[in-house]
Amino acid sequence: MGSVDRECEVVVVGAGFAGLAAARRLAADGVDVVVVEARERVGGRSWTDTTAAGATVERGGQWIGPTQHRLQALADELGVVTFPTYTAGQAVEWRDGARHLYSGLVPTSDPAAAAEGVAAILDLDLAAFEVPLDAPWTAAGAADLDATTLGGWLTDHVGAPAARAVIDVAVKAVFGAEPAELSLLFALFYLHAGGGLTTLARTTGGAQERRFVGGSQQLAVGMAAALGDRVVLSAPVEAVDHGDDHVVVAARRSDGAGWRARARRAVVAMPPAVSAQLRWSPPLPGVRDQLSMRMPMGAVTKVHALYDRPFWRDDGLNGQLVSDEGALCSTFDDSPPDGSHGAIVGFVAGDDCRRLERLGPAARRQAVLAELGRAFGQQAAAPLELVEQHWPAEVHTRGGPVAICVPGTFGALGPALREPVGPIHWAGTETATEWCGYMEGALSSGERAAAEVSSALGRGGGHGDGHP
Amino acid sequence: MGSVDRECEVVVVGAGFAGLAAARRLAADGVDVVVVEARERVGGRSWTDTTAAGATVERGGQWIGPTQHRLQALADELGVVTFPTYTAGQAVEWRDGARHLYSGLVPTSDPAAAAEGVAAILDLDLAAFEVPLDAPWTAAGAADLDATTLGGWLTDHVGAPAARAVIDVAVKAVFGAEPAELSLLFALFYLHAGGGLTTLARTTGGAQERRFVGGSQQLAVGMAAALGDRVVLSAPVEAVDHGDDHVVVAARRSDGAGWRARARRAVVAMPPAVSAQLRWSPPLPGVRDQLSMRMPMGAVTKVHALYDRPFWRDDGLNGQLVSDEGALCSTFDDSPPDGSHGAIVGFVAGDDCRRLERLGPAARRQAVLAELGRAFGQQAAAPLELVEQHWPAEVHTRGGPVAICVPGTFGALGPALREPVGPIHWAGTETATEWCGYMEGALSSGERAAAEVSSALGRGGGHGDGHP
Repeated sequence: MGSVDRECEVVVVGAGFAGLAAARRLAADGVDVVVVEARERVGGRSWTDTTAAGATVERGGQWIGPTQHRLQALADELGVVTFPTYTAGQAVEWRDGARHLYSGLVPTSDPAAAAEGVAAILDLDLAAFEVPLDAPWTAAGAADLDATTLGGWLTDHVGAPAARAVIDVAVKAVFGAEPAELSLLFALFYLHAGGGLTTLARTTGGAQERRFVGGSQQLAVGMAAALGDRVVLSAPVEAVDHGDDHVVVAARRSDGAGWRARARRAVVAMPPAVSAQLRWSPPLPGVRDQLSMRMPMGAVTKVHALYDRPFWRDDGLNGQLVSDEGALCSTFDDSPPDGSHGAIVGFVAGDDCRRLERLGPAARRQAVLAELGRAFGQQAAAPLELVEQHWPAEVHTRGGPVAICVPGTFGALGPALREPVGPIHWAGTETATEWCGYMEGALSSGERAAAEVSSALGRGGGHGDGHP
Repeated sequence: MGSVDRECEVVVVGAGFAGLAAARRLAADGVDVVVVEARERVGGRSWTDTTAAGATVERGGQWIGPTQHRLQALADELGVVTFPTYTAGQAVEWRDGARHLYSGLVPTSDPAAAAEGVAAILDLDLAAFEVPLDAPWTAAGAADLDATTLGGWLTDHVGAPAARAVIDVAVKAVFGAEPAELSLLFALFYLHAGGGLTTLARTTGGAQERRFVGGSQQLAVGMAAALGDRVVLSAPVEAVDHGDDHVVVAARRSDGAGWRARARRAVVAMPPAVSAQLRWSPPLPGVRDQLSMRMPMGAVTKVHALYDRPFWRDDGLNGQLVSDEGALCSTFDDSPPDGSHGAIVGFVAGDDCRRLERLGPAARRQAVLAELGRAFGQQAAAPLELVEQHWPAEVHTRGGPVAICVPGTFGALGPALREPVGPIHWAGTETATEWCGYMEGALSSGERAAAEVSSALGRGGGHGDGHP
């Protein structure tokens, strides 16, 4: 089977927030750990980049909100400071081919529809809070909830097209998926895990409340720096051989050379649809594979439009858009804290993301610019730079922002999500019970997997909540 | 990039019915074709095996029914004869912990429920026949149908638990999936493609009407024999590199050695969830990958119980069971044409399949035997041999009998199912528009892909319906 390049106690596959959090917790327990990462960078779905003109853009996760305590503690530890998302002024609603302005969470140009939309969101959140986070499949009526799509529920419960459009926008921006794709049971779990759709959709007081000066990827870079040469980059794992008490992961370096690590345990910190692509020997249990096939990645293209200044603020606009037509379903002001240039970040999500991929990059760009122009004025249609991050083309993630559960999955297969397979333990934000799908959930999932492994190795344990 | 072991015009990946049908059509067009197969055998989901005691069992597809003209023509060509499934006598219904006998398609112990069940099946079939086979996503109301699960539809339309149980059994046996997993739009398409649920559930006059003397895999073996050394076995393809006018597929032989074929075009004849596991360079379009993640394989364990003689026939039973409880959802008489021994074939499907995998082989075996005993008498609980084929553990198929489409998929992503990607063409029963999911559909898909390739190469064409 060839030689082994690295012997260690635990190998972590994936240097996103989950894998790095697992590794640092294991290292703190005195465990000899190695992290193997496919990309030439750490961070996974957190990726802070610099444009040709020198602007900082977040190609992946970028916000932090209330109750994301692990993420805040990590930022504090690393000296990364946050600043509030710009929210002063009004947002733009594009509905039925016309432009309206509004304040608050929900567009109000059709007040009756707005009221119906708010009522439906509150109904969803109330139902979500009844779904147990650690075992959603035990919820009352779980089988019926799991046989229903969120889209089907909305069709039955929301009559006004304008109300439905606003909820669709929120769902698409949160999941990168159409309501019709989502198991209602899974959607309720996910909403509960993040404090409800009201919290997930909000800037101030919600999931988009603040940003990191210098970008979220710094947190991954900081964790990796402390791990030093325990992090091996540019080594996509292709195969995992395992027995009761050993794991060998085989990667291929960019020069084509093989690279192998042998350990007693592994933490696989990848979305299920990605880990299922590895060659497993022995094969994963059929149940695990069945689950992986039923947790597809969402589809999102994250778009950054950069300008010399945030000119929309002069018009009393906060850079937010909710649109029922076109490429972008929603946008936010993404300018740097000092306002030294202007930036709008927007999401092309779900079927729009897939439809525009099929039409090609030029058509997508044209659709995005047209939409920015009609929302924020013709100046917005001519940015200095337009940076598009099309996550479905990222082979090491296969989409974004998160994996969803399709109907009929969570009930019978849910328990397999975190259940170890021999010496293999599972991390990744998809396995989190709080802030599933977010950087906070990734951190908690890594810590949970590390605790499993430390316990199995007879190490560590007794970490209090205050553990760094 | 290493040397090439085989130069050809077209490489076909997968030697199931689809891949072999494509290859033989291409060979007939004078195209230099090579078929690469992961397993040490041809046939894919058709697999005729011999037990330790010498009995023939079909671990995969085994039946042929009316309107499966390609399959019949292939059998005629190869001299493989068929015989009718044994149907004389009554079937067993197990419902609410009690045993009943019935004749005909639907259990009748609760006549009102039977009537409701038949009405619902007819409603489904009428709706199915409205869904266009070549573009189901253009059906009237497609978006709403695709936002609904078949399970949700049944909950809304079938009140009597006994009626629901019977339909659930049929759905699970047909799809290897729970009604809650299935997009209603996809389910209707699939039913239409096979002539309706009434046809799919039937023995005489339906999909289980006849069997092949000697087994269905003979048809694959016969196609492969004619292709000779153009079929390369035991070579799992791991990677596909492609440009506008070339494809290189890289396989790994069982001794670990690499094996590569270079061609102008490729036909990939695998389920989407399997082809998506290959390393594609350049990566597949995001849209194709999004589709692959939304077509999970069903889950079925096919069970064969073998006896010295078909003793249930003495009791006036035809070996068929419909059960609302336990491991097996349905069974059929599977004895050889001369009745020289007795055999029952049954299906553990959907959540039962996954649940019993988790409980372990001993628990599954015990559950199966208990169910056979209560249905057909204690003699049935003590077979000479019990052969279980657990398809979710087959890494080259990942489940069975077929891939399903989850809600929200078919609408936006359906067109990507057959759309070539550069020089890559797609076959496999999942791409068929008639008898999708069946051996007949696999044959037609291979012929359709071969026609695409021959046309692209400027070869062949003009095949009439009578082409062998």
